[in-house]
Amino acid sequence: MLGQTYEGQDCSAARALELVGERWSLLIIRDAVFRGTTRFADFQRSLGLATNVLSARLDRFVAAGLMERRPLTNSKYDEYVVTEMGLALKPVVIALTHWGHHWAGGPPGVFKHADCGGPVEQQLVCTRCGESVAPDEVTGQRGPSDPKQDPVRAA
Amino acid sequence: MLGQTYEGQDCSAARALELVGERWSLLIIRDAVFRGTTRFADFQRSLGLATNVLSARLDRFVAAGLMERRPLTNSKYDEYVVTEMGLALKPVVIALTHWGHHWAGGPPGVFKHADCGGPVEQQLVCTRCGESVAPDEVTGQRGPSDPKQDPVRAA
Repeated sequence: MLGQTYEGQDCSAARALELVGERWSLLIIRDAVFRGTTRFADFQRSLGLATNVLSARLDRFVAAGLMERRPLTNSKYDEYVVTEMGLALKPVVIALTHWGHHWAGGPPGVFKHADCGGPVEQQLVCTRCGESVAPDEVTGQRGPSDPKQDPVRAA
Repeated sequence: MLGQTYEGQDCSAARALELVGERWSLLIIRDAVFRGTTRFADFQRSLGLATNVLSARLDRFVAAGLMERRPLTNSKYDEYVVTEMGLALKPVVIALTHWGHHWAGGPPGVFKHADCGGPVEQQLVCTRCGESVAPDEVTGQRGPSDPKQDPVRAA
């Protein structure tokens, strides 16, 4: 997966962005994971992007395992069904939505708990002390890298 | 802020991506919010990207309020200091890192609670029932839009 835009970045955020960091990618994923979109024409209508770009993104998602391409019954078209790997991007979309609402003037995202219908929030939690942690109380550092995956940077 | 790539997308994730969705943007933010990077040369060294691209990204962040450009004492260079608006992107970087570790073979992110040093996790929590919510138990829909901000799409 590496060897493209972010070659040399031994970081999981960079690896994620290799797969979903291109223009439109995360909005296609948003439609797939939260609006249940599967058809090319529905993605196109929702996003209004050029069909060649949409086609390239969907093909890339299929190749990477984020979506599966399946034939539609009674249609000459296929559908693009998001996989578990794609569904796991929900927290990324939620985090972007939250930030875009608070800092970029967008509408609030409405995320709900399927079981009880209550509003769902994203929280940072310390697994040692159990406290809810504000963003300015989180520090980050590189994790241990896997030398097999990136021998140059791990040296 | 709109009127660029994602014009017509009345969605906070799209608004966020207008500001931080370009190539390299979120990795520059990662360096700023988790590695404390402020100098042009340090961003450049860490990321290895073309100086004209880095310069364009930093200027954009300053214009949008994500960073402040400040003169450095005893230097002809300025530094780029991330603002509260920029620091609030930590959950986005954490979500991408988590996904990139689990699904794209990247190293684990090491995020810690500044107070106690314990590991910090991102969780989805239902504010009605108090349960921790798995990603496949979260549904999403458009929030109420502000017609002043996007009259065409809100019609």
